[in-house]
Amino acid sequence: MGLMSESLTQILIPVAALVGIGFSLVQWFLVSKVKVSNGIGLENGYKDRLIEEDEQEEGIDSDEAVAKCAEIQNAISVGATSFLFTQYKYLGIFMVVFGGIIFLFLGSVKGFSTKSEPCTYNKGNLCKPALANAIFSTIAFLLGALTSVLSGFLGMKIATYANARTTLEARKGVGKAFITAFRSGAVMGFLLAANGLLVLYVSINLFKLYYGDDWEGLYESITGYGLGGSSMALFGRVGGGIYTKAADVGADLVGKVERNIPEDDPRNPAVIADNVGDNVGDIAGMGSDLFGSYAESSCAALFVASISSFGISHDFTAMSYPLIISSMGIVVCLITTLFATDLFEIKNVSEIEPSLKRQLLISTVLMTAGIAMVSFFALPSEFTIYNFGADKAVKNWHLFFCVSIGLWAGLVIGYTTEYYTSNAYNPVQDVADSCRTGAATNVIFGLALGYKSVIIPIFAIAVAIYVSFSLAAMYGIAVAALGMLSTIATGLAIDAYGPISDNAGGIAEMAGMSHSIRERTDALDAAGNTTAAIGKGFAIGSAALVSLALFGAFVSRAGIKTVDVLTPKVFIGLIVGAMLPYWFSAMTMKSVGSAALKMVEEVRRQFNTIPGLMEGRAKPDYATCVKISTDASLKEMIPPGALVVLSPLIAGTFFGVETLAGVLAGSLVSGVQVAISASNTGGAWDNAKKYIEAGASEHARSLGPKGSDAHKAAVIGDTVGDPLKDTSGPSLNILIKLMAVESLVFAPFFAAHGGLLFKWL
Amino acid sequence: MGLMSESLTQILIPVAALVGIGFSLVQWFLVSKVKVSNGIGLENGYKDRLIEEDEQEEGIDSDEAVAKCAEIQNAISVGATSFLFTQYKYLGIFMVVFGGIIFLFLGSVKGFSTKSEPCTYNKGNLCKPALANAIFSTIAFLLGALTSVLSGFLGMKIATYANARTTLEARKGVGKAFITAFRSGAVMGFLLAANGLLVLYVSINLFKLYYGDDWEGLYESITGYGLGGSSMALFGRVGGGIYTKAADVGADLVGKVERNIPEDDPRNPAVIADNVGDNVGDIAGMGSDLFGSYAESSCAALFVASISSFGISHDFTAMSYPLIISSMGIVVCLITTLFATDLFEIKNVSEIEPSLKRQLLISTVLMTAGIAMVSFFALPSEFTIYNFGADKAVKNWHLFFCVSIGLWAGLVIGYTTEYYTSNAYNPVQDVADSCRTGAATNVIFGLALGYKSVIIPIFAIAVAIYVSFSLAAMYGIAVAALGMLSTIATGLAIDAYGPISDNAGGIAEMAGMSHSIRERTDALDAAGNTTAAIGKGFAIGSAALVSLALFGAFVSRAGIKTVDVLTPKVFIGLIVGAMLPYWFSAMTMKSVGSAALKMVEEVRRQFNTIPGLMEGRAKPDYATCVKISTDASLKEMIPPGALVVLSPLIAGTFFGVETLAGVLAGSLVSGVQVAISASNTGGAWDNAKKYIEAGASEHARSLGPKGSDAHKAAVIGDTVGDPLKDTSGPSLNILIKLMAVESLVFAPFFAAHGGLLFKWL
Repeated sequence: MGLMSESLTQILIPVAALVGIGFSLVQWFLVSKVKVSNGIGLENGYKDRLIEEDEQEEGIDSDEAVAKCAEIQNAISVGATSFLFTQYKYLGIFMVVFGGIIFLFLGSVKGFSTKSEPCTYNKGNLCKPALANAIFSTIAFLLGALTSVLSGFLGMKIATYANARTTLEARKGVGKAFITAFRSGAVMGFLLAANGLLVLYVSINLFKLYYGDDWEGLYESITGYGLGGSSMALFGRVGGGIYTKAADVGADLVGKVERNIPEDDPRNPAVIADNVGDNVGDIAGMGSDLFGSYAESSCAALFVASISSFGISHDFTAMSYPLIISSMGIVVCLITTLFATDLFEIKNVSEIEPSLKRQLLISTVLMTAGIAMVSFFALPSEFTIYNFGADKAVKNWHLFFCVSIGLWAGLVIGYTTEYYTSNAYNPVQDVADSCRTGAATNVIFGLALGYKSVIIPIFAIAVAIYVSFSLAAMYGIAVAALGMLSTIATGLAIDAYGPISDNAGGIAEMAGMSHSIRERTDALDAAGNTTAAIGKGFAIGSAALVSLALFGAFVSRAGIKTVDVLTPKVFIGLIVGAMLPYWFSAMTMKSVGSAALKMVEEVRRQFNTIPGLMEGRAKPDYATCVKISTDASLKEMIPPGALVVLSPLIAGTFFGVETLAGVLAGSLVSGVQVAISASNTGGAWDNAKKYIEAGASEHARSLGPKGSDAHKAAVIGDTVGDPLKDTSGPSLNILIKLMAVESLVFAPFFAAHGGLLFKWL
Repeated sequence: MGLMSESLTQILIPVAALVGIGFSLVQWFLVSKVKVSNGIGLENGYKDRLIEEDEQEEGIDSDEAVAKCAEIQNAISVGATSFLFTQYKYLGIFMVVFGGIIFLFLGSVKGFSTKSEPCTYNKGNLCKPALANAIFSTIAFLLGALTSVLSGFLGMKIATYANARTTLEARKGVGKAFITAFRSGAVMGFLLAANGLLVLYVSINLFKLYYGDDWEGLYESITGYGLGGSSMALFGRVGGGIYTKAADVGADLVGKVERNIPEDDPRNPAVIADNVGDNVGDIAGMGSDLFGSYAESSCAALFVASISSFGISHDFTAMSYPLIISSMGIVVCLITTLFATDLFEIKNVSEIEPSLKRQLLISTVLMTAGIAMVSFFALPSEFTIYNFGADKAVKNWHLFFCVSIGLWAGLVIGYTTEYYTSNAYNPVQDVADSCRTGAATNVIFGLALGYKSVIIPIFAIAVAIYVSFSLAAMYGIAVAALGMLSTIATGLAIDAYGPISDNAGGIAEMAGMSHSIRERTDALDAAGNTTAAIGKGFAIGSAALVSLALFGAFVSRAGIKTVDVLTPKVFIGLIVGAMLPYWFSAMTMKSVGSAALKMVEEVRRQFNTIPGLMEGRAKPDYATCVKISTDASLKEMIPPGALVVLSPLIAGTFFGVETLAGVLAGSLVSGVQVAISASNTGGAWDNAKKYIEAGASEHARSLGPKGSDAHKAAVIGDTVGDPLKDTSGPSLNILIKLMAVESLVFAPFFAAHGGLLFKWL
């Protein structure tokens, strides 16, 4: 037994979760002090007059600007809310149907018998019937799905609440705007991390009322929570991704390329849809995605622990090690956030990126100490971990290394991503330079950059896998994934900061704010592109580890001893699995392309038929563009969704668990590469464009200004990158995770009844 | 024993090879009847006057045109020859160094002992010493390298001989031009297929003089032949690929985009380099590549056979089954070629593609019968195949299925590739249509098309692997690869036809031929883009099968029993291996981009500084552009070459055979996807552009004509596709094959001394 008692664990976990929620409420309160009211109250919470000298000189009425901000914010919020509610109707149907499938498949394993069974791992004891597993897995699935939806929804609400406030604060300087955007990101980060932990904790305790001492059955059914989280994230990412990029690409193609009006110009009919998209895709989708990773890695770790010595000997504290790590993570992130919001002040545009990078470093260093404490207090000094049929002796400091290496691999991935996507470094500047010779070289250099950016993250992941795998088998991988996600609150805060700043810039442009304000929001946004790429790096890195952990859990549960590449069943799974990310990307990219073409037609139609639109005398019809994005994304998310959800079911049912294991391994090793390269290529193109626009160096000015040939070439790259970085790339995380967790949940069925095709042959 | 005696086998194989060489000489003679002389003899071999009415009307002096053709052909031929000779100097150094490494590594396995050893597989017998293996492997390596170089060189010579002749024949109609281009392709196809077979056959018989009854040792050292073939192909593909695309991209960026002059315009200083590139990249590179695949699959099959019952019982005919299949392939392709050159006549542009497709179908159908005959006559009705330590009972009709499924999988890949890259079908037309909204949507749709085009080939490969693997283990895979390559003579003929037509078009433009002739060569060229893509499809499909066979042979020889994904050593190999194709592509694409930028600067400089160049009064300085391409390709081929050559050595020496096995499996399943999608995306963009230019349908005309916005967008896609389809994509075949064959050759060393890092830890 470790040093921490069960009752202390039972207190600390919910307390940490509540502290996280409390902290996010405080941050929210601070953000809410910035007032966005229609004209009358011109003071904000800091009692400073907001009308600055330069604005008055430019003759922009601040009253009117605030009113406009409020109006635009409201339009974005209404659009995002209505889209999410429409999407939830579809997701509701999916949840019911898929919940039914889970119940039927798992219930049929033992013919819906209600008799207790001998346990699979905890030999000699009786476990609850398979029917209970079917029922509780379905409940866990629904709980995970609802928590995921809630995470995405809350994130969106916060982001649409914060965007206009960031714009208004930008009038007082870049530092104030940064704090507002960052605080809002923190609200989302802490709320999600704490909420995910709390729901999981409460569910385990409630399930325990029924399961009692059958921990094997309890944690087997809890894996449904991960499946629920990821399946909602799939549709959130894909649907949201198609929505946002259809609008973005459509708006850019007509607005920037044909009509030569700036980004986010209020005359562009697709501009509201574009800004709504940032909130439903990058915020709600990302929130659901990272929540899914968190839920899955916890479930994978808990499941392996339950069939290891912790579970067999009923050591609750050691069993809850993954949850205690997450609790510690919330506390660490809380301290880290104070560094950004209270200890250092941003005075200059160039300090934004270093400040965000510092957040990553601080949280990683502090968390390493936290992990050491948790490993020392919560774990017995020696124990055994289940390892594909054998038991592996593990020491508590082994687990410290497993969690830490995941954490530090995350930092390496984050920093590498920053290097390849920030325009402060050579790679993006080279891509910008290649715009001299036109769009073609820009695209070639951008693709090459994305491919190259894969190298270091893959080595980082490989080292993390080797160390944690060698020290503590699949449990090591699962806690390494948790280590990478332990600072999720900070990661999400940094990540959400991006789309909030993007929106803030959009609102500034639409509200007709002064040039200097737009410049500040642009700088926030450029840093945001990098942080969004970092967030995607974390998401994909953790997804890789999580999938491998889930894969290991699946193999354990399916009763396979080895997954030998040199058997035909496994190899065909491997090569077909490696193909799935391509199939999936083809679908999502084509969807964005087709939806964008529709958007282009509508935008052109409005410019051609609404008199006075180009001159700013008439208002465009924003609603029709919102509707096009909504309809396209809901229709187009179904085929890729079906591909992901059905592939494991088909492979498992018809080809059996070995082929399915091959499919999982293949899609994992191939999908990671496609996802990282797609995200970074897109991020680099976006920032190469921003680099030329900002003209902050001699080199950048030689390429610009806006409207130059090089800039036009950069815009083309940026547009190509949109679906890569915001639709197909990040959705691939979910492809690899969801297939793995789904296989794990359905493993008892596949093991009992799978491989029909080979049985017939 | 089978029905064919050893002496019959010893006669039939060389006879088939000599028939192939004879046939190629006949085809060469027919092509040579088209005279390209400087002005005097205006008659060609068919005794028709070549000055057509319409040309005289257009006032183009035919005398002058022929003289110009001869001059341009000469410039191209001189450029290509001088590049290849410069390249061969580097390759010579590499051959000597790498030959030395092979000798040292393999010799050191048993400390350069000259004592006979007990055989590894043929228990109870004595085998030749490890030192003999080192010496003969090195000799086989050098033989393979020389044959590969010869294959590429001969292909280039033939292509540069045929290009102007095709142009001149185009004056008489599209049918005549097609026959000339196709016959020239056939010269190359038959010469390579026959030559490869002959050298291998002779080497085996010579090696046998020393090895005698030690077939295990004999065929172990023969695998060096495959390594030699592939390592030359690597540099041929990469160096040639960079050469051709640096010139092509550079020429297009200034010529087409900036100066608005047509492709292949003689005023463009890079135009000769561009045409040289087609010959050194697409012809010499492709020749070396397919020769390498052929040599490797033969070696893999022969090695597995030597440790199976054929080898143990010294059944020479059954042992030579792979060579007899290839011999039969030459005969079948000979008949197939007659269908194209003599039985059907092409009268119309629209008949070109169906005719080439028919070639694939005819050769496949005939070859299926051929395989049945060979399997029946050459094999005993039942025998055993070595299967990772166990023996697997196999019947002769099992092998018929293995070879046939490889053959038919090749056809499926070829037809799928045609569907996705020919502008006669929806996919390319959709891509062309997306040019309406600019280059960005064109790139998005093109990438999505490439991703999608992976699906069917992967399923075809998976089925071929499953069937052949299940029926005859690794031997089945190896002969399936041979099956796909058995019609290599036809495949190469179809493939070489592409760059020859491309060159013919270039010469027509440069020689100032009439518009109608240029239209004909354009049509030949558009079909050539599709056939080039089909050729790449075959190359990558066969590479996948070959690599798997070599992988299996490596595992056998390294003494590994299983390659279990669920061990950390294997898994990190798998994920890093899956990353290598990205790393490699990043290097090669960046190389093309950088070299193209240099070319752009030079071309711009010439346009700006040579007075009268744009007006056609002064001649550009072609030689400097040729030099830029040459220098860039020689310098830039080294890092990607080193990556491929060193990766297996590092993985094997420091991480051991399990990790190396993971690397091979990972790079195989990931590289196939990247290669297929890159080739098809590039092919589709090229033909989308040609579709708009040709304006053959209502839809196409609505996008055109040349110079329209949609056409400009299509040109950007085409330029992006150039390095994808002609440099990084096809080089990946070699990456996966070469790493596998290198691992196989070095397997005894890795098994004895590898895994240093894990031993230290």
